[in-house]
Amino acid sequence: MAQTMFEPVYKDIFPFWNEISAGVQAYICRHSVAMTYLKGTTIHDGSECSGVFFIRSGCLRVYMMSEKGKDITLYRLYPGDMCMLSASCVIQAITFDVMIDAEEDSECYVISGPAFASVSKDNPKIKIFSLETAVSRFSDVMWVMQQILFMGMDQRLAIFLSDESKRTGSDVIPLTHEQIAKYMGSAREVVTRMLKYFAGEGIVEVSRKGVKILDKKRLRELAL
Amino acid sequence: MAQTMFEPVYKDIFPFWNEISAGVQAYICRHSVAMTYLKGTTIHDGSECSGVFFIRSGCLRVYMMSEKGKDITLYRLYPGDMCMLSASCVIQAITFDVMIDAEEDSECYVISGPAFASVSKDNPKIKIFSLETAVSRFSDVMWVMQQILFMGMDQRLAIFLSDESKRTGSDVIPLTHEQIAKYMGSAREVVTRMLKYFAGEGIVEVSRKGVKILDKKRLRELAL
Repeated sequence: MAQTMFEPVYKDIFPFWNEISAGVQAYICRHSVAMTYLKGTTIHDGSECSGVFFIRSGCLRVYMMSEKGKDITLYRLYPGDMCMLSASCVIQAITFDVMIDAEEDSECYVISGPAFASVSKDNPKIKIFSLETAVSRFSDVMWVMQQILFMGMDQRLAIFLSDESKRTGSDVIPLTHEQIAKYMGSAREVVTRMLKYFAGEGIVEVSRKGVKILDKKRLRELAL
Repeated sequence: MAQTMFEPVYKDIFPFWNEISAGVQAYICRHSVAMTYLKGTTIHDGSECSGVFFIRSGCLRVYMMSEKGKDITLYRLYPGDMCMLSASCVIQAITFDVMIDAEEDSECYVISGPAFASVSKDNPKIKIFSLETAVSRFSDVMWVMQQILFMGMDQRLAIFLSDESKRTGSDVIPLTHEQIAKYMGSAREVVTRMLKYFAGEGIVEVSRKGVKILDKKRLRELAL
């Protein structure tokens, strides 16, 4: 039953699927559940090992919460994405916590953390997959923290966009990322990623025509 | 020649050493060099793949530099430690950069990044070791960034220690980490790690008697 539901999906998403035994495949399916989370639900609050999430539909937001209740988005998970940071019991070296909310109604397949940890222990290919998934997210997270918290790049970009919009009297800033980077004395790839971050937060929309400001209020707040 | 120099050390530090072929062992040794870095030298500036560092003596400081030249210590490497973040070519998922200075005269064994990447590709055990080493450092880095940049915990602890020192007229604050955490409304483990961070920076000395302030000037600067 569980097998017929999960296997066709797992076959596609896990690069190691055809290299593990039928017994291990069945074990992973038996320890999977299909969950639907309503928009706004907190799925993972960092206090326990919630398991490995695979997103089927919707959107999850992974964030950190400061002591004062301020939160910062680390990244978003879309259909096809997988989350390992919610499964600290799978990767023992992970000793910090994130929180996860459903940003839209979201369907997920969730594999039990202890079950995944146990098959990962005996299968190098599963272990490598888990670690690589985690490391690539870490890089995203490091980037966000470095740019936002350390460089103030969110503020600098917000100031630039606000000023340009005021100067030209338009909500659309018809500049390439390259040009924005040049004006700001930054690198194109930094501007591109930060604009993508702003777009994820619903602050701007990025298209070939340039950058369109959608949420002036939040942009002003960031520019303060 | 290289083999007799590096092998006795690699045998102890690499958990996978006895499970790889003599040919691969020899290959790793051939692509290793022994380096001595003088205090104050920048060993890795983030722009290239400097290789895998193993520290034999001395101390390396791993840090990030903001655009304004402000820097933040992420962690220190002591004899016996290994650094993977300097080898972004080994772990492709690492897409951000750190800088590394020799904080004391330091002797290191350095394995070429491309050579280590190539053996890691063919040996799951080497790959798992590399990824696990990287993930555990990421967790340290995340902690520092979260506490310092996001929570302002360095500032909060600096304020607490300054105030206590002024109040009692003494450089020694005879409180346990538990008590400090209670006063600050924080967790003991957070206070312990942050004190260790302060100690690494030479700001305080931690002993059974309590916390002794060594560098009042830096403590005051942090408290601002």
